[in-house]
Amino acid sequence: MRMDTSSSHSAAERLDAVFAATRSRFDLPEGVIYLDGNSLGPLTHDARMRVADELDNQWGARLIKGWNESGWIDLPHIVGNRIAALVGAAPGSVVACDSTSVNLFKVLSAALQMRPERRVVLSDRGNFPSDLYVAQGLLGGVERGHELKVVEPEEVAEALDENVAVLMLTQVDYRTGRLHDMADLTRRARAVGAATVWDLAHSAGALPVHLEEAEADFAVGCSYKYLNGGPGAPAFVYVRPEHAEHAHPFLAGWMGHETPFAFDPGYRAAPGVGRMLVGTPPVLAMTALDAALEVWEGLDLADVRARSIELSETFVAEVEARCPELVLASPRDPLARGSQVSFRFEHGYAAMQALIERGVIGDFRTPDLMRFGFAPLYLSLDDVLRAAEELETVLRDRLWDDPRFAARLKVT
Amino acid sequence: MRMDTSSSHSAAERLDAVFAATRSRFDLPEGVIYLDGNSLGPLTHDARMRVADELDNQWGARLIKGWNESGWIDLPHIVGNRIAALVGAAPGSVVACDSTSVNLFKVLSAALQMRPERRVVLSDRGNFPSDLYVAQGLLGGVERGHELKVVEPEEVAEALDENVAVLMLTQVDYRTGRLHDMADLTRRARAVGAATVWDLAHSAGALPVHLEEAEADFAVGCSYKYLNGGPGAPAFVYVRPEHAEHAHPFLAGWMGHETPFAFDPGYRAAPGVGRMLVGTPPVLAMTALDAALEVWEGLDLADVRARSIELSETFVAEVEARCPELVLASPRDPLARGSQVSFRFEHGYAAMQALIERGVIGDFRTPDLMRFGFAPLYLSLDDVLRAAEELETVLRDRLWDDPRFAARLKVT
Repeated sequence: MRMDTSSSHSAAERLDAVFAATRSRFDLPEGVIYLDGNSLGPLTHDARMRVADELDNQWGARLIKGWNESGWIDLPHIVGNRIAALVGAAPGSVVACDSTSVNLFKVLSAALQMRPERRVVLSDRGNFPSDLYVAQGLLGGVERGHELKVVEPEEVAEALDENVAVLMLTQVDYRTGRLHDMADLTRRARAVGAATVWDLAHSAGALPVHLEEAEADFAVGCSYKYLNGGPGAPAFVYVRPEHAEHAHPFLAGWMGHETPFAFDPGYRAAPGVGRMLVGTPPVLAMTALDAALEVWEGLDLADVRARSIELSETFVAEVEARCPELVLASPRDPLARGSQVSFRFEHGYAAMQALIERGVIGDFRTPDLMRFGFAPLYLSLDDVLRAAEELETVLRDRLWDDPRFAARLKVT
Repeated sequence: MRMDTSSSHSAAERLDAVFAATRSRFDLPEGVIYLDGNSLGPLTHDARMRVADELDNQWGARLIKGWNESGWIDLPHIVGNRIAALVGAAPGSVVACDSTSVNLFKVLSAALQMRPERRVVLSDRGNFPSDLYVAQGLLGGVERGHELKVVEPEEVAEALDENVAVLMLTQVDYRTGRLHDMADLTRRARAVGAATVWDLAHSAGALPVHLEEAEADFAVGCSYKYLNGGPGAPAFVYVRPEHAEHAHPFLAGWMGHETPFAFDPGYRAAPGVGRMLVGTPPVLAMTALDAALEVWEGLDLADVRARSIELSETFVAEVEARCPELVLASPRDPLARGSQVSFRFEHGYAAMQALIERGVIGDFRTPDLMRFGFAPLYLSLDDVLRAAEELETVLRDRLWDDPRFAARLKVT
């Protein structure tokens, strides 16, 4: 069942070499096959070294002088530019800061102001709940009769009409991996005059993204999943360059001021995407992220996507052959999903715990989804084959029928 | 001029022992006297060790399991409770998260909703500019005819009237150290029915704060100054327990949901101050802060305040005796300022650079303020005396008259 989607032996060898090199940058625990990088990417050697240097030689040794001498003040832009290169955005159009939800609040508030006569924010049930909470909080606060309209993912295109101020979507569904066609939906939104806000939480580093080419207006995303920035690492925010001077988020702070250190009592937005900054950058976290992003230098996201598809297709085929109890919950077409697959199984929670105890780490989402992420930078085809074998063993053992196992699950 | 404010020799010895012990917890560079802990506190040995452990044994080894096994998910509350103990707040009424500005946005939006019929947010010119920007951004977004009224610090009391929805102040002026009387102004605000929002950026860890006793409604603050959490460390937010169930910030995300992992499409605020959480907690940064806060265990803030006053009074007396060119810009009464003093000097910028080159680190604020912070946890009376001596030397040398020095300044 092991397949190679590349057209020639030498192409496959090239990819093997590329991903053997990236894998060596990660510090993965011995004996673990990690299929949950879509929740939290692993530690890199680069991140460990840079954080230690930050503690000892920057903050520790330079104290306040680190803001200039260690370049702390530029980190949101430096890290933003690294991420821009991964999501099809021009240099200078992305900054790293705050959390994905906080960044979403900023761009959604800016987008609403660009369509002051419209009252609908359109989203879908595949969106991550926090994104819906952000919209609910913002629209409740604005109190101008706005409505958050949430439709099924496949109904988004037809729900786009001239009442829609903002189309707000997460490109890849966090449960099933279902992938929206960003180019098509953005074009449709533009055709009815709606602004677009894309959440790239499960896209950045998972597949090629073309924000500029798609003419997306705003985007946000997460850096602790496929970008491996560490738990709760700073998120990012994109503003289409032509909008930057007209984008006015409700959330404004000194780091987004034109001249933060002039301590002017009146706010004047910084030029460009810099106005999306608010508070002081979290230097330790930003340093870990900056270092983690080094692994992407010189990588081609088309290669990442090709390998991701090879990994997930292999896993789906193996699991379907070995574990007929599991039902694929993700799109069967690999081009219609991100870099994860999910299976429905009535004992999914217990099965995932048993699998984790065997060293294969995926995760579970209610009510019955076993979720597996495929990050080519540190996963091999062998890993995926072994994961499928372990899953078969778990299903054969049926530990959930054993009261001692069930009791253990309840304790944790 | 060396004075001891304690009433007996043994009391002085006790304080010396207390602060010798705290000083040993800090990893200060050799030969540096650090009088800028009011901008950025120094590294502690605890923080270095905990961050290294976090990288190697938590994130690195446990990966996604760290959220439960390493207690990451509880960090905002654990750290919040440590800070609560330093600002006179009940356990469970403070969480650590986001930046001070983002937290201010949350509580200001919640406070405004508690006074829907009023239109004035009252603040003063001593407030940190970012706080004013937050209010400007929020009121501009709400568009309901609100006004941000900014008066002189000494005019706040008389400007409080029944039009004021929220009194929003920073307790300690970042330039001069001037200290507002929180108890008095909060009482006056309550008397006219205004809600209060206090920014404790330069108060927390600098002097005893009594949020609960003062009946303050909301507070925010910074943890990278006197709390030594590291550059850009997570900030904190306080909600008076009796308000928590009625406080609805515009900024809402999954970590503030009653059941974040139920992935409910509708937002339901968590009970208590937990609703002030939004995105995923920044674990590395939160860990450094949690570790840095260990030094406060068992410390009495009255002792910290007594030693802070001793340090600043000694410094003021020494500088005024040695450097008549410098004019005190801070209140002369130590009880009317926080834990910093500032002097006006026309060559202040150059003088501060020259002083820093001599190993005494303070900072400069336009147009002419030389600013010095006194953190008793790692500063001794000897440090302060030596700092005054170095300052005297700098003023005698007048390097700013040397074109080579001036040229060097322009380069940096």
